[in-house]
Amino acid sequence: MKSVYSPRHHGQSGQYELVSGAIVPAFEKPERAEFIRARLAEVALGPVLPPETHSLDIARKVHDAAYLSFLETAYDQWLARGNTGPALPFIWPRPGLRSDVPPADIEGLLGHYSFDGGAPFVAGTWDAVKSSHDVALTGAALLARDRAAFALCRPPGHHAGRAFAGGYCFINNAAVAAQALRDAGHARVAVLDVDYHHGNGTQEIFYDQRDVLVVNIHADPRHEFPYFLGHADERGAGDGVGANLNLPLPLGTEWPAWHAALDSACTAVADFGPTALVISLGTDTFIGDPISQFRLTSAHFPQIGARIAALGLPTLFVMEGGYAVAEIGVNAVGVLEGFDAAI
Amino acid sequence: MKSVYSPRHHGQSGQYELVSGAIVPAFEKPERAEFIRARLAEVALGPVLPPETHSLDIARKVHDAAYLSFLETAYDQWLARGNTGPALPFIWPRPGLRSDVPPADIEGLLGHYSFDGGAPFVAGTWDAVKSSHDVALTGAALLARDRAAFALCRPPGHHAGRAFAGGYCFINNAAVAAQALRDAGHARVAVLDVDYHHGNGTQEIFYDQRDVLVVNIHADPRHEFPYFLGHADERGAGDGVGANLNLPLPLGTEWPAWHAALDSACTAVADFGPTALVISLGTDTFIGDPISQFRLTSAHFPQIGARIAALGLPTLFVMEGGYAVAEIGVNAVGVLEGFDAAI
Ligand SMILES: [Zn+2]
Ligand SMILES: [Zn+2]
Repeated sequence: MKSVYSPRHHGQSGQYELVSGAIVPAFEKPERAEFIRARLAEVALGPVLPPETHSLDIARKVHDAAYLSFLETAYDQWLARGNTGPALPFIWPRPGLRSDVPPADIEGLLGHYSFDGGAPFVAGTWDAVKSSHDVALTGAALLARDRAAFALCRPPGHHAGRAFAGGYCFINNAAVAAQALRDAGHARVAVLDVDYHHGNGTQEIFYDQRDVLVVNIHADPRHEFPYFLGHADERGAGDGVGANLNLPLPLGTEWPAWHAALDSACTAVADFGPTALVISLGTDTFIGDPISQFRLTSAHFPQIGARIAALGLPTLFVMEGGYAVAEIGVNAVGVLEGFDAAI
Repeated sequence: MKSVYSPRHHGQSGQYELVSGAIVPAFEKPERAEFIRARLAEVALGPVLPPETHSLDIARKVHDAAYLSFLETAYDQWLARGNTGPALPFIWPRPGLRSDVPPADIEGLLGHYSFDGGAPFVAGTWDAVKSSHDVALTGAALLARDRAAFALCRPPGHHAGRAFAGGYCFINNAAVAAQALRDAGHARVAVLDVDYHHGNGTQEIFYDQRDVLVVNIHADPRHEFPYFLGHADERGAGDGVGANLNLPLPLGTEWPAWHAALDSACTAVADFGPTALVISLGTDTFIGDPISQFRLTSAHFPQIGARIAALGLPTLFVMEGGYAVAEIGVNAVGVLEGFDAAI
């Protein structure tokens, strides 16, 4: 399997995040992508290609144009206001407040376009975000000829919605890739998100569409980030009713229950009848993950890949979360190896 | 004029807030109330009474019962989860996420019941919040016999909505006082908020009621906290249409324009025909305020009191913001002196 990687992900480095009442160095850090790249070489999975530069035309189909412009200019606006350090919001338009009037001030705009204190902007953020988007689109294009490809995206994307950042995510790479596959002629595309956290952004983006199925296996949001989406009763809206499936699992879930959920998810994908599949690949289901509470071991990840391969679909793996940095390479590439071994 | 004060406000101390990408010691600190109390004594404004203990029955008419229970237990839940230090949320239910399923986890609940990173819980928060509420109700009760009273509330309240904390505020003391005056037989009550910041919580609480007029004079929310409410087109909803008035002013506003807005506000209050008036008294309109951008001087504050006195209404002053600590006593008590001198 070919992979796509860009060193420009390093632009998103030295950033901080708000968690448990403190601003701390972000768990989402450059070493994550480098451990994965090293493992790709170690096991000689296949060629690692640089991304081609893409316009934002496809991204504008899954994100608001004004939001994308905000992402590109946010850090400059932050500096222009006299701030230093990473740009973080501090107020958000929850219900009871208005969300229809964008603030003119960057402090307000950061909240207008986010849902948490976990998507910080530093000087290189936009460059990294744009490169991650390019990596996803280059990977999606590989499916024209290849059975599968791996987009080593960083920063991740699945928490980013149509007009909001959050949870380390800015552009929703998996959603952009799914849209690209739609535009390339796939009438039905499925997105299967196996990250520990619910991919709230992907769900929100496609919630009223019937051409893109979104399936999530994740920690029960009553107990885990992102808390405010990912419940089992969310089945889609309007035209999209039936094209969203959430399989929330309790904290502490081990492989048998997780694998059973994967089986249900794959059955739903097969029933949908897509001609292409995007996997939001997070490895924070790993027992050693520092911020997560599932109990998969490294031996399980190849089995995930094998089960996905059994769907027989052109498949793009898009990297999402995973914060056990030393093991992220073995676990993420383990999924890809398991896929390749099964086809 | 009698004042009401409780030393239990000291419970809210040592707290931090999220602002401009950093966690910093909160501008809302105990010294604020102590400078005001000292100034009350210095000018011998009148007796300073302790609050009577009140039940939360009236508070439950302006806040959700579940929210009040959350306020009371939040810090214990935070500690029980193994956290230390002030409790702050880190994710919020903005549009695109759900707000109808309260999380089971305190980290999620903090976001469920707030709109920013500016309402931190420490060990003494609930005791201080409850005492501030008691101060407001005790002050409201004084209007049964007295022309005016001053509730030296701390923490402040006007950013707190029916089911959310934020902006240093937990229970909306002014809203509780207004409700108490309604329950005491005043058919129409007006709340006039002269704090630099829009009193978004008070507006939200009474937005669909026609028996409580809410008028705000404040910094344009396109450029200033709370950013997501306080625009001029917000006139109330349902039965409350016409019973909300916002007078946003540009950053840098000086006394002539501010005083003209006060005159418009007082005219609206008079036209409404209330039999009691609650003033949300913030002094962060002061030119020396460290987080605000209006340009009133200490000489202007007595003139505010005089203009309010000219309305001829039973008037409860409820303390809100003001962060120029050394001058907060002179400015806040200056309003009360101006009022007393004019009646
Ligand atoms: Zn994750
Ligand atoms: Zn204020």
